[in-house]
Amino acid sequence: MFHPATADLSLPSVMHALSDPVRLAIVAQLAAAGSDPCGDVDVDLHKSTISHHYRVLREAGVTVTTVEGRTRIVRLRREDLDTRFPGLLDAVLRAVQN
Amino acid sequence: MFHPATADLSLPSVMHALSDPVRLAIVAQLAAAGSDPCGDVDVDLHKSTISHHYRVLREAGVTVTTVEGRTRIVRLRREDLDTRFPGLLDAVLRAVQN
Repeated sequence: MFHPATADLSLPSVMHALSDPVRLAIVAQLAAAGSDPCGDVDVDLHKSTISHHYRVLREAGVTVTTVEGRTRIVRLRREDLDTRFPGLLDAVLRAVQN
Repeated sequence: MFHPATADLSLPSVMHALSDPVRLAIVAQLAAAGSDPCGDVDVDLHKSTISHHYRVLREAGVTVTTVEGRTRIVRLRREDLDTRFPGLLDAVLRAVQN
């Protein structure tokens, strides 16, 4: 599974990943929960659509997916995002919650 | 010309408007200059492409365009964005400058 290195995180890609209501909901849920089994997000969409959204988030470097046993676990790359784009994720999460 | 009301600014739309390298360059230039004649951005693109980017920014509520004489002046909607999404524009501008 592709994950960009922290130094390769691109602002346009991260902004694009965070420009969709479903992906914003996933990110807000991950921020609240710490981690989630992939696909466990509480939205009423087809599984392949949800997978697409997880892939966009992962490939932009917003999330990291690890395989633990038979489950994929998704986490926010908080530290990496804060390192590259200080304050951005916090501002987005605040905005989602409003 | 359509400009959304401050209360109608949508996070996904604003994030989308700020997810393109040319539009990020326009926004950074507007932040530095205060205002710009529309189309005066320093990028090597066809006029219609630049117009498209200005329209996306305006329709998302990132910028306001006013007509002064024969010139269109474009400004960032800093206060409106800060009201609706505190810290977001600042974080994006910091990230662009890195």
